[in-house]
Amino acid sequence: MSEQYEQSELYKLRHTAAHVLAQAVLVLYPQARLGIGPPIADGFYYDFDLGVDENGRAHSFHPDDLPQLEKRMRQIIAGSHSLNYQQVSEAEARQQFANQPYKLELIDELADKGEPISVYQHDSFVDLCRGPHVAHTGKIPADGLKLMSIAGAYWRGDEKRPQLQRIYGTAWPSKQELKEHLAMLEEARKRDHRQLGRELEIFILDEDIGPGLPLWLPNGNILREELEKLAHEMEDKASYQRVSTPHIAKDSLYLQSGHLPYYEDEMYPPMEREGGRYYLKPMNCPFHHKIYASKPRSYRDLPLRLSEYGMVYRYEQSGTLMGLLRVRAAQQNDAHIYCAEEQLEEEFMAVIDLYRYYFSLFGIEKYVMRLSKHSKAKLGIKYVDNEPMWLKAESLVREVMQKHAVPFVEAEDEAAFYGPKIDVQIWSAIGREFSLATNQLDFGVPPRFDLTFTNQRGEQETPWCIHRAPLGAHERFIGFLIEHYAGNFPVWLAPEQVRVIPITDEQNGYAEQVAAQLKASGVRVQAMLESDRMQAKIRAAQQMKVPYMLVVGEREAAAGTVSLRKRDGSRQNGLSLAAFAALVQEKIACRDGDL
Amino acid sequence: MSEQYEQSELYKLRHTAAHVLAQAVLVLYPQARLGIGPPIADGFYYDFDLGVDENGRAHSFHPDDLPQLEKRMRQIIAGSHSLNYQQVSEAEARQQFANQPYKLELIDELADKGEPISVYQHDSFVDLCRGPHVAHTGKIPADGLKLMSIAGAYWRGDEKRPQLQRIYGTAWPSKQELKEHLAMLEEARKRDHRQLGRELEIFILDEDIGPGLPLWLPNGNILREELEKLAHEMEDKASYQRVSTPHIAKDSLYLQSGHLPYYEDEMYPPMEREGGRYYLKPMNCPFHHKIYASKPRSYRDLPLRLSEYGMVYRYEQSGTLMGLLRVRAAQQNDAHIYCAEEQLEEEFMAVIDLYRYYFSLFGIEKYVMRLSKHSKAKLGIKYVDNEPMWLKAESLVREVMQKHAVPFVEAEDEAAFYGPKIDVQIWSAIGREFSLATNQLDFGVPPRFDLTFTNQRGEQETPWCIHRAPLGAHERFIGFLIEHYAGNFPVWLAPEQVRVIPITDEQNGYAEQVAAQLKASGVRVQAMLESDRMQAKIRAAQQMKVPYMLVVGEREAAAGTVSLRKRDGSRQNGLSLAAFAALVQEKIACRDGDL
Repeated sequence: MSEQYEQSELYKLRHTAAHVLAQAVLVLYPQARLGIGPPIADGFYYDFDLGVDENGRAHSFHPDDLPQLEKRMRQIIAGSHSLNYQQVSEAEARQQFANQPYKLELIDELADKGEPISVYQHDSFVDLCRGPHVAHTGKIPADGLKLMSIAGAYWRGDEKRPQLQRIYGTAWPSKQELKEHLAMLEEARKRDHRQLGRELEIFILDEDIGPGLPLWLPNGNILREELEKLAHEMEDKASYQRVSTPHIAKDSLYLQSGHLPYYEDEMYPPMEREGGRYYLKPMNCPFHHKIYASKPRSYRDLPLRLSEYGMVYRYEQSGTLMGLLRVRAAQQNDAHIYCAEEQLEEEFMAVIDLYRYYFSLFGIEKYVMRLSKHSKAKLGIKYVDNEPMWLKAESLVREVMQKHAVPFVEAEDEAAFYGPKIDVQIWSAIGREFSLATNQLDFGVPPRFDLTFTNQRGEQETPWCIHRAPLGAHERFIGFLIEHYAGNFPVWLAPEQVRVIPITDEQNGYAEQVAAQLKASGVRVQAMLESDRMQAKIRAAQQMKVPYMLVVGEREAAAGTVSLRKRDGSRQNGLSLAAFAALVQEKIACRDGDL
Repeated sequence: MSEQYEQSELYKLRHTAAHVLAQAVLVLYPQARLGIGPPIADGFYYDFDLGVDENGRAHSFHPDDLPQLEKRMRQIIAGSHSLNYQQVSEAEARQQFANQPYKLELIDELADKGEPISVYQHDSFVDLCRGPHVAHTGKIPADGLKLMSIAGAYWRGDEKRPQLQRIYGTAWPSKQELKEHLAMLEEARKRDHRQLGRELEIFILDEDIGPGLPLWLPNGNILREELEKLAHEMEDKASYQRVSTPHIAKDSLYLQSGHLPYYEDEMYPPMEREGGRYYLKPMNCPFHHKIYASKPRSYRDLPLRLSEYGMVYRYEQSGTLMGLLRVRAAQQNDAHIYCAEEQLEEEFMAVIDLYRYYFSLFGIEKYVMRLSKHSKAKLGIKYVDNEPMWLKAESLVREVMQKHAVPFVEAEDEAAFYGPKIDVQIWSAIGREFSLATNQLDFGVPPRFDLTFTNQRGEQETPWCIHRAPLGAHERFIGFLIEHYAGNFPVWLAPEQVRVIPITDEQNGYAEQVAAQLKASGVRVQAMLESDRMQAKIRAAQQMKVPYMLVVGEREAAAGTVSLRKRDGSRQNGLSLAAFAALVQEKIACRDGDL
């Protein structure tokens, strides 16, 4: 969430709505124990522990509760209760939340850190809270509010702690804006990559293999290969060198890199045999650093750009896994650029330019770049403890972006542990936000691996390292593309580019000939020779969202032509096969976004 | 080892030489405990436990022992002691080997299995042994014998048992044949893929990453990519569909497939979290079976050919790891062909033909195909317990091979657990043997995964599954190719195809222009613009075994030509750049083996 949003009226409004929701829940379930209830990107949520029944089973909400709770919330809103802030002592807080064990745990933490403890009260409801809030509950538009869904969520996101009941809601300044948001969600539902992923045979998940571990079906694998080919072409042009590194390594590698113990929670547990502890890699960088270090480097070798569509493994929590968008094994369009300081500007901007090229290629019109910075308070904890280098690196990035007039926002406490980065949020065609690419400036790890080069003065110097992943991970990016295109992939990406449909069985021979000729010129094509009716074949092709259908009947066979039906419904009859082949080859070669 | 070899005079001779070696060792080290001493592909070995010294350290052989032992062996050979076979009772055997704990363990096993116990004696030496042997020690040619090396080896290959000292030796029918063998080994040493792999910057191994886990440097990665491209082209032509599957899965998958517990010893240990046990995959087949099963299949969908350059992980013993030839993570050119029985012949032969195409492409002149069959005694233990299906599958393979006049040998007890296979041994240019490809006919696992298709009569039928990997694993195949070509890769495979060398700095501009033009036409090229002397640049290019050097001086720059020096020393001056570009493009496009 951007700082801008966190300071907005909308953010406050949603935060207050969360309090109102908690109050409403306490009316319906007086025994409820409260977790936390923050605003989020498109609304807010609140977590509750409803206790257990006489059989020890956890109580949970029923979907029918939501309309009731909404009704109760509207009553509270109508009361226009003002929200009152009060700072309290630890003892006061403990007394106030004596029946709320989760709140007591939060109070413990605030007290441990010596941070101020504050509460917000409206009507009869008091919550442990830092704010901000709107002035009174009446500021929440009663017709801009909706409770969306119920989900389970571990307390503190920790799978070893109790599972609470989460209610998601949304709130907007007006009825119209709520309506637009719901329409967007409905459109997103239709474009749901999990649904389309199944229908278009892109990927499957399987219980015996495990959660968050997709298998790419042939159609999905074509998408992967096309994206890799694109990345390879761009990286070849920019003189990257590809490498390939193991998916596992001993603990000593991750101790050197700093991933152990800092990143251990997000890693799969180790495999231990013959005294070795092997971990699946959570990142590719330590492996590339080893390749850098495998021979002496001189300034003449720099910039050295090592790229790999490398698989990384991160043990995301079960509850957060979602189709291709949140997985546990992701193949990243990764690269590491080792360079001298005077090469930084050019290299960093080349990456930014690559982003922008990709965005235009994929028709991504809305995106925001964010300079993610360290937090002074967390130096030595979450971030490499070297403030001067942080300030230097951040100002290097800021200056490059400003000099080249690239718009960006800034955010504290969002950096990688080894340096600042430019993160990119993109919006799909229907306005949903995705986090995608990243361009990181690493000053922290090269010294840990003793990486050096001999500079022009014959001295040993530590290189900078840019980590970049402009297409992110295959999994997430393809999940995004499915929604973005609603499965209507441009020709170059489409798993099946052309389907040839004979009008009757008599044209089967000609249809095969057409398909063979197109296949020979590199087109992904299929001839439908089954004895189904032509209309059924056309419907089947439409369902698979094949960009081009070629209908061939007696006339076409005699004349050596095809009748083209594009996916968008437009048609062109009597096209010579050569002319069509040229058209489709051109679309593929240029990666044209239009049919 | 082939049955033919096991029945040969050479095999017996080497077996007897192993006994003679053991006798010689007992003279030098009377305290030695004997392990086993079999013939192997190029000679024989014998394992010894020399006991520990007063400090508890294991005694080991000294390289100086080898000439002494050889001398002693020649004396024994000169004695022409006859080898006498005798079957003995368990009690007799125990008495005879009372001081030989390893032999006692073997006797236990024979007794447990109720197998006959036999010994061979010559001179004063008696060994527990089934034979066969030559008639007397004098049959071993004293000048065809050589002790090669000393190595550590775990008793029974089990890392938890004592480590013994292994002496390797070789023996040949004549001095000349020994000489040729040693010359081949010397040539192999020069072509050692580990040495060349380092010099040509193909791969590295790193302690922090772990044994048997190579990292592909940019040059090695080009070899990988070119091989994948080749496989993709061949597989596209043959209508394979590529998929991509996770590297880990839950234990339930491997329980269903039968890899757990039958294959567990060769697998990395599990990763356990949240009640899930995840294993790195030792094979790709269960994943492809899951894809097959992901939707209903009809006879119209068959043959379904799913291919993947999939990584497989096998925990090979530390002592057996060797560069790229024996690794713990290998990327296999794998595919699974699901088909109806009447499609088997065509599909199986298409794979055999693909092998032969690859062999001719890589100039592999000598190869042997072996039909690896089950062992009746091990049904239900090592092999799926269904004798009629074994006999049927083996005879199907035999008939196909015979019908198409493909020469092959047969071997018992070498099948996969799920069916018979054709294994291929190939020989490198210098006559070293490698195991490479495999073509397996699986009747055992499809039913375990409930794989079916609707046949033409509308009934559910179980498909056959062909597992094939004609290029084996990248790691092993590239290891083979390095030796086979001595690093002199054909142009299409060469990581760097062309190096442009200006005679003086004044031609740097022209050199860059030449390189840019070649790069644009898809050639891997580098211009050497450093201020080194031309001769030094030529030597550097020769060291990297670049197939084509283009030397450009004043004359070439003026005329727009290049002077070509091929890797084999031949030259061609005044070649137009266009003519050279056409030459190199042609070599690449045809994957020509000649320069």
